[in-house]
Amino acid sequence: MTEPAEIFSSVEARTVYHKWEVKYEIKSPDCYKKLVITINGRSPGPTIFAQQGDTVFVELKNSLWTENVAVHWHGIRQLGTPWSDGAEGVTQCPILPGETFIYRFVVDRAGTYLYHGHYGMQRAAGLYGSIIVSLPEGVPEPFSYDYDQNIILNDWYHASTNEQAAGLSAIPFVFVGEPQSLLINGRGKYNCSLSTASGSAAGVCNTTNPECSPYSLTVVPGKTYRLRIGSLTSLSALAFEIEGHDMTVVEADGNYVEPFAIRNLYIYSGETYSVLVKADQDSSRNYWATINVVARNPATPTGLAIFNYNPNHPQKQPPTAPATGPLWNDTASRLAQSLAFRARQGFINKPPVTADRVIVLLNTQNKIDGHFKWSLNNLSLILPQTPYLVALKENLTGAFAQDPPPDGYDVANYDIHSLAENVNATSSNRIYRLRFNSTVDVILQNANSMTVKNSETHPWHLHGHDFWVHGNTAPLHPYGWTALRFRADNPGVWAFHCHVESHFYMGMGVVFEEGIEKVGELPSSIRGCGES
Amino acid sequence: MTEPAEIFSSVEARTVYHKWEVKYEIKSPDCYKKLVITINGRSPGPTIFAQQGDTVFVELKNSLWTENVAVHWHGIRQLGTPWSDGAEGVTQCPILPGETFIYRFVVDRAGTYLYHGHYGMQRAAGLYGSIIVSLPEGVPEPFSYDYDQNIILNDWYHASTNEQAAGLSAIPFVFVGEPQSLLINGRGKYNCSLSTASGSAAGVCNTTNPECSPYSLTVVPGKTYRLRIGSLTSLSALAFEIEGHDMTVVEADGNYVEPFAIRNLYIYSGETYSVLVKADQDSSRNYWATINVVARNPATPTGLAIFNYNPNHPQKQPPTAPATGPLWNDTASRLAQSLAFRARQGFINKPPVTADRVIVLLNTQNKIDGHFKWSLNNLSLILPQTPYLVALKENLTGAFAQDPPPDGYDVANYDIHSLAENVNATSSNRIYRLRFNSTVDVILQNANSMTVKNSETHPWHLHGHDFWVHGNTAPLHPYGWTALRFRADNPGVWAFHCHVESHFYMGMGVVFEEGIEKVGELPSSIRGCGES
Repeated sequence: MTEPAEIFSSVEARTVYHKWEVKYEIKSPDCYKKLVITINGRSPGPTIFAQQGDTVFVELKNSLWTENVAVHWHGIRQLGTPWSDGAEGVTQCPILPGETFIYRFVVDRAGTYLYHGHYGMQRAAGLYGSIIVSLPEGVPEPFSYDYDQNIILNDWYHASTNEQAAGLSAIPFVFVGEPQSLLINGRGKYNCSLSTASGSAAGVCNTTNPECSPYSLTVVPGKTYRLRIGSLTSLSALAFEIEGHDMTVVEADGNYVEPFAIRNLYIYSGETYSVLVKADQDSSRNYWATINVVARNPATPTGLAIFNYNPNHPQKQPPTAPATGPLWNDTASRLAQSLAFRARQGFINKPPVTADRVIVLLNTQNKIDGHFKWSLNNLSLILPQTPYLVALKENLTGAFAQDPPPDGYDVANYDIHSLAENVNATSSNRIYRLRFNSTVDVILQNANSMTVKNSETHPWHLHGHDFWVHGNTAPLHPYGWTALRFRADNPGVWAFHCHVESHFYMGMGVVFEEGIEKVGELPSSIRGCGES
Repeated sequence: MTEPAEIFSSVEARTVYHKWEVKYEIKSPDCYKKLVITINGRSPGPTIFAQQGDTVFVELKNSLWTENVAVHWHGIRQLGTPWSDGAEGVTQCPILPGETFIYRFVVDRAGTYLYHGHYGMQRAAGLYGSIIVSLPEGVPEPFSYDYDQNIILNDWYHASTNEQAAGLSAIPFVFVGEPQSLLINGRGKYNCSLSTASGSAAGVCNTTNPECSPYSLTVVPGKTYRLRIGSLTSLSALAFEIEGHDMTVVEADGNYVEPFAIRNLYIYSGETYSVLVKADQDSSRNYWATINVVARNPATPTGLAIFNYNPNHPQKQPPTAPATGPLWNDTASRLAQSLAFRARQGFINKPPVTADRVIVLLNTQNKIDGHFKWSLNNLSLILPQTPYLVALKENLTGAFAQDPPPDGYDVANYDIHSLAENVNATSSNRIYRLRFNSTVDVILQNANSMTVKNSETHPWHLHGHDFWVHGNTAPLHPYGWTALRFRADNPGVWAFHCHVESHFYMGMGVVFEEGIEKVGELPSSIRGCGES
C-alpha cells in the first residue's frame, strides 16, 4: 500500500460540499412500500464524488421525527479528524432531530468507499451510499478503462428496524431472518404474490412501480468499464456476476490489487471492489447482472440488474434465465478468493516484520440474562452513554469500565468446533488501549454458534485504518481464522466490529484507542450526551 | 375551585417513587401484533397512586433504540417545577436513548389525571397511563362510594407512528384515517378477518390472544363505584356508557362538579371524569361497557369492556348486543353536556371579574409549501431546537422569533362557515408572553376546514393551569367557539394545544410564558439540545 496523498500533496486542495436532509419517506425499493430513511429524498443517498486530497463537508440535517442519527464514512481513515468518523457512542453523540451536524474530513486516498448510518440499525432502513475518490488531475490509474460506474449492493427487509431490533432483544430470541429481497443500486423485485397483503394493506406491493424497475447499466460494445462495487448488506454475503462476462479485480477497499480474473465476485458487507469488465459479447441482446446469497442457505430470490448493450432498450429482458450463483456452502471457493488478493506491484506497502502486541479474539454467540448476544473473548460490547472519544480526551473515567478486556482466550481448552459448554457472557464497555505507533496483530478465531454444527460468516471492519491482509474489511469464514496486522498510528478511538447489522447490534465488536493525547481539540458538536 | 393543598399543608409530605423503563415491545392490544412503547413492559403504563401533597419521583430510563422520549404529566400544574412538565421543546430537551431522566413534581390537588408521551407522536404508540391523587388521610370526598376504579380510553392504529407521520408530512397529504380499534384499559378487539394478513404476516392477528380479552370490571351488587375515566385518544371523541346503568358525574379534570346524571359520557382526548355508578341492576348477568366514536363519521367498531356482576364469570358475554352509541353528528347533545358542568357548591373558586387581556385564536386548517397544517391566527407552531424554558431563562434570543403572535384575527372579514379564500399560513415559533398574575381570556373560534362543509372537533388542553369553563381540557365543537379564562400565575412556559395527536403534530398549538423571572434554577438534565 502506498500513500499517494503524500506524493501529490502539492496539488491545490479542493472542497466538496454536500447539504443533506435525512428523513423518513414511503418508498418501494423492491416494489413493496415501506418507510425508508432517505437522504435528499433518495436511498441509496447521493454519491459523494471527490478527488484525492479534497476536503469533504457534509452538512447533515436530521429531519427524522423522534430518532437521532449518525453517519459513518466507511473506509475513510479520518486522519486528524477522528471526531468525524460518525460512529455513535465511539466518536460522537447522536445528532438530534432538527439538528444539523457538519462532518468534515479529507479523502486522502483515491478509491471506492461507502457511507452509512452507524446508530442503532438505521443502515438497514436505507441510510447508505457511495464515496468515489478519484486520483488527482493527470495522475493515471495503473490500469485502463473507458468508463466508471458505481454499483452498490444491499439486502432488504420489510420489517422496520424497530421490529427487527424488538425480535433480537426478545426472549425468546427472534432472528431477523433472511432478507426479502436483494437490491442493486437500490432496486429489487419482491414477488408480490408472496405478500398476499390485502384489505388495508392493498397497494402495498406493486411490481409495476417504476421505483423498482431493475437498474440497467448501459454499455457501448467494445468498451471497458470499471465497476466500483460495494456491499452494505445487513446480513448476506453475496456472489456478483455478469452473465457471460469475465471480470478482473483491480481494487479492494481503496487498495490496488494484482489483477485477477473471476466469474463470481464474492463480496461481504462493508467491502468495496473495482472490477474491469469489457463489453465484448454479442451486442444484439442484454445480459443479467445478478447477486445471489452465499454462506447462508438462501431464502431470498436472486437480485437482478440489466447489463444493457447499447442500443438495445435498457429494460429489455435478457433471453436467458438469471444465474443462480455458486453453491451457497462452497466455503472453499470463498476462502480461495479471500486468499487470492495481493497488493499490486509498485503499490506494495510492506507490513512491519514483527508485531508489538497480539490480540486474539474468540468470536462466539452467547446468552446474557436470557438474551442472545455475540461476544469477543466472552465480552459483548455495549457502547457507553458518553462517546469514548469524549470520555478519553476529557479523562472522564466514570464513563466506561477502565480495566482492559483480555488479549486472548483459553485456546487450549476451547473447542471451536463444538457447542460451548457454558454460553454465558458478560456485557462490557471496556476497550483496548494501544501504544501509539505500535504494530498490532489481531487474530480472529471463529467458532461454533449456539446451533449444532453451525458457524457463521463475520465480515470484520476496522475504522480508521487499513490492515494487512488486504483492506479494512475482511471476512471471517465459518470455523476459520483471520490474522490482521495494523499500525496504531491514527490518533483517535476506533470501532472494530462485525459488519452484519444484527451481529454488531448484539455486541460483536471491540474498540481501540491510540494516541488520544495527540487528538486535537474536539468540536463541541460531537458532545451533548452522557457525562461532560 | 378550592386549594385544599393549602388547608392540609401541615400533613407530612410523602414521596412516591417510580422507576420506569421505556422500550419497544411487540404487543397485541387489540389482538393485532405491533410494536408498542411500553413502560416496565406495560401499555398503558403503571398507574401512579399518590396522595394530595405528595412528591412524585419518576426515574425514567429511555431504552428505545434510536428514539428520544419525553413524558407529560397531564393535569398536574407543576407549581414551582415547570421543568418537569415533560413537553419536549417547551420545557425540556428530549431524553436520549440510554439516558435516565428524573421527573419530580408535587401533586397538589386530589383528582384524576393522566400521563403520556409528549414528543413526536409517541403517545399514539402506547406511551400513556393514569395518575390517581387521593385526598389526605381522613379528608372525605364530597360524595360517597364504595370502590374506586380507573378506566383509561384510547383509540388505536396499526400503522406505526412513523408511518402516520410520513403520511401527514407527505405531498399529497395522507391522513392517519379512522383508528382500527378502540381500547378500554389497553384492550380492544380487531376483526382479524379484515386483516387477511397471511404469508409472512401470518399470526399477526389472533383474537384468542389473552392480551386482548376484554377488560372486565367486577362489581358487587348494591355497591357504588367511582369510575375514574380518562381519554387519551389520538383522534376520536368518545361516548362511554354502561348498559342499563346511569352514571353521575362528580369530577372533571381534577375539579369537583355539581353532580348530574347521564347515560352517555362524552369524553374528548385529554379529559378525565369521575362518575358514580351503582351496581343496581339484575345481578344474574353481565353488562357491556362501551365506547363509540362521536363527532366524526365512525369507521371503528365499538370498544367493549364487561361490567361484571360478581359472581358471574368475568368474561361471560352479556346476552345483549353492545350499544352503538348516540348519533355521531349530534353536536347539540355534546355541546349541552359541555355546558352542563358547574363547579360543585362549596368548591367554587370564582373567576376574576374582568380579564386583563383577550386573545382570540382562529382555528384553521392550512397549507404551507404544499403541506397540510393547522394554524392559530394563521401561524402554525413549530417547536424550536432549544426548549422555550431554557431559551427564556437564559435569554437566548436567537432560539426563537421574538416578535409576538397576534392576539386576534380579522373577525369582520373572515367567514368561519366557508372555505377560506386563501389557505396559506406561516410556520412560527413565536410565543405569547403574559404579564405575571394577569387574567387572560382565550377565545377559541372554530372554522371550516379545507373540506367543504366540514369543521372538526378540537379538544384544547392547557398545560400548567386550570381554566374557568371547567378544567384544563375543553372541546371546541364544529363551527363553535369556547371562551376560557385563566390566571397567569404559574411561573414557567406552557403549551396550549389541540390534543388530537395529528393536529398538534401539524402545528395546532400556541405557547404562553409567564413569570419567567420567578422560575428557579433549571436542572441541567433538561438541557443538551439547541443553544446553551
